[in-house]
Amino acid sequence: MRVLITGAAGMVGRKLIARLAKDGQLRGRKISALELHDIVAPEAPAMPGVDVSLHTGDLAAPGATASLLAARPDVIFHLAGIVSGEAEANFDLGYRVNLDGTRALFDAVRLAGFAPRLVFTSSIAVFGAPFPDVIPDDFHPTPLTSYGTQKQMSEALLADYTRRGFFDGIGIRLPTICVRPGKPNKAASGFFSGIIREPLAGQEAILPVPRSVLHTHASPRSAVNFLIHAAEIDGAVVGPRRNLTMPGVAVTVGEQIEALERVAGSNVAKLIREQPDDTIWAIVKGWPTRFEAKRSRELGFAAETSFDEIIRAHIEDELDNKLAG
Amino acid sequence: MRVLITGAAGMVGRKLIARLAKDGQLRGRKISALELHDIVAPEAPAMPGVDVSLHTGDLAAPGATASLLAARPDVIFHLAGIVSGEAEANFDLGYRVNLDGTRALFDAVRLAGFAPRLVFTSSIAVFGAPFPDVIPDDFHPTPLTSYGTQKQMSEALLADYTRRGFFDGIGIRLPTICVRPGKPNKAASGFFSGIIREPLAGQEAILPVPRSVLHTHASPRSAVNFLIHAAEIDGAVVGPRRNLTMPGVAVTVGEQIEALERVAGSNVAKLIREQPDDTIWAIVKGWPTRFEAKRSRELGFAAETSFDEIIRAHIEDELDNKLAG
Ligand SMILES: NC(=O)c1ccc[n+]([C@@H]2O[C@H](COP(=O)([O-])OP(=O)(O)OC[C@H]3O[C@@H](n4cnc5c(N)ncnc54)[C@H](O)[C@@H]3O)[C@@H](O)[C@H]2O)c1
Ligand SMILES: NC(=O)c1ccc[n+]([C@@H]2O[C@H](COP(=O)([O-])OP(=O)(O)OC[C@H]3O[C@@H](n4cnc5c(N)ncnc54)[C@H](O)[C@@H]3O)[C@@H](O)[C@H]2O)c1
Repeated sequence: MRVLITGAAGMVGRKLIARLAKDGQLRGRKISALELHDIVAPEAPAMPGVDVSLHTGDLAAPGATASLLAARPDVIFHLAGIVSGEAEANFDLGYRVNLDGTRALFDAVRLAGFAPRLVFTSSIAVFGAPFPDVIPDDFHPTPLTSYGTQKQMSEALLADYTRRGFFDGIGIRLPTICVRPGKPNKAASGFFSGIIREPLAGQEAILPVPRSVLHTHASPRSAVNFLIHAAEIDGAVVGPRRNLTMPGVAVTVGEQIEALERVAGSNVAKLIREQPDDTIWAIVKGWPTRFEAKRSRELGFAAETSFDEIIRAHIEDELDNKLAG
Repeated sequence: MRVLITGAAGMVGRKLIARLAKDGQLRGRKISALELHDIVAPEAPAMPGVDVSLHTGDLAAPGATASLLAARPDVIFHLAGIVSGEAEANFDLGYRVNLDGTRALFDAVRLAGFAPRLVFTSSIAVFGAPFPDVIPDDFHPTPLTSYGTQKQMSEALLADYTRRGFFDGIGIRLPTICVRPGKPNKAASGFFSGIIREPLAGQEAILPVPRSVLHTHASPRSAVNFLIHAAEIDGAVVGPRRNLTMPGVAVTVGEQIEALERVAGSNVAKLIREQPDDTIWAIVKGWPTRFEAKRSRELGFAAETSFDEIIRAHIEDELDNKLAG
């Protein structure tokens, strides 16, 4: 089993690599080679007996993708991308990486002709307001950001390239991955994690939107579970509609804060400071709220069932199971 | 009023030009300039006092689009494209013209910075089976052809570029335009017109699919009405969802043939010969059937209400109001 990961230095990429290193196998076959690509140098995991290669470069640069395929990976995880806030602020960069980079990778796979399984991380940002109360699987994508547009266009390519047999693609629309570990990034969704992560580390956090904002979340653990399941699922069972809305926990920001109080106490939750930000609010208010995610659940994709669970996953995975203070 | 038309030598383009020549105005303003572009030399209409320029070239060639914008058209009709059958047979050509050509035009408009109204002819081929009985406006596009994928991706760009203020776009998803005049083209939908047009001209026509096939049609006249309305409609009323499914007449092939018998007699309808074609059937069976088209009707887009009317429009516009024989 040979695996290629783009965006390997990113948050989800690093979690996925750690999981593959632990499992040592994918689709019931021992992992023999791991190719890791990112524009930032990716870190090599300790995987004795596995041929790990590190590639550093711009996926959207001419010719960058073909060389990644020389070893004919059985499974490709395409995670590289520019996050929503940055893709909105920098029009050219977003289209170049998220659309042209993705298309370059897809075309390199097409021209290489060996039709691997290709898992692509799309986003619920393909949807845009106004929404019904529960967004059904067959609701139309009308993104309200360039990031969402780029993901939507990539999904369309993935479906067509799969239909034509160029590869065997599965697009997974991730909900917001929360609690995101590490430093804040430029995603407009950053505060959803910040208001949990910073207080748990004894630090103040800014809440830029109203507490009534309803949003869907899944933990980094669940994101990795989705990816592994997407790599292993039988394509024939999925059928021609290859872009799947992942399950998650739909809660308001107020409910997130209540969960934090339950799990870590009200002194921790008091570290959240409300400071409205119109730019973030303008983006977030067009975002989807609650999904049915019927197809993905039926296909065996599973996430947490409460936000308390999401907070506990963070405490276990990132804080050595210890609360500060 | 300065108008630019791409695909000006095509069927819809020529009908639109004839209509603009007759009206002499658009959006309540006298047409002063008409720029016509196509890869096939477009014909200049007789429009005294109007500055008509003809451009022949490949829209997808580097730099081709910028020169078309030198005169800063107030309204752009983007009709150029490769039809469904050809885009399916020729992967590279379809993506190059329908996606890259469209993106090149959109980017040239973006960089020129004068934000004109831009009307784009999308297609109901953005939808793919399985379908509910009536396809609602908020049904997800899951095209089953590369042509449909290219139209879907262009729609996504149009919405994002409009949201960003680069232009003021309206995407109109045309149903099958029927009766298509002239010679058969390479569209997989060609037979829908052929079974009416050829018998009316005293010639045999091939029916490659079962009579039970249900499909939505509008006349070339209606297509032009849609385009004019899309050029004139108030963008604020349309709102952010800029891609609209046009109304049409939903009939089975059997009902088309019954209408032909009613309008032209059973001797004419007898000229249709059934000869199943698996390739065409494979494409057509994934096509959409009946649309709600609620938004477009509410926004004032109107089509015929019976297939008899569609046949009569053809007899009036193409056969000098005379039946053969
Ligand atoms: N984290 C979330 O909440 C979330 C939600 C929905 C979708 N996603 C998608 O999941 C994927 C992974 O998300 P993440 O949270 O790990 O993001 P991340 O920003 O942590 O990782 C993305 C990686 O892509 C790399 N990258 C950027 N430009 C590149 C280029 N030109 N060439 C090569 N690599 C480049 C970055 O260096 C980064 O390491 C992304 O595609 C993201 O859009 C994430
Ligand atoms: N006719 C229909 O039933 C129907 C249905 C849905 C959508 N549409 C869309 O409406 C538009 C017009 O349709 P039509 O029936 O007039 O099609 P058509 O084929 O008659 O016209 C398309 C024109 O585009 C031109 N063209 C092709 N490649 C080009 C290139 N590289 N550069 C410049 N021009 C190029 C062709 O020469 C042709 O004149 C197309 O975009 C089509 O996809 C048509």
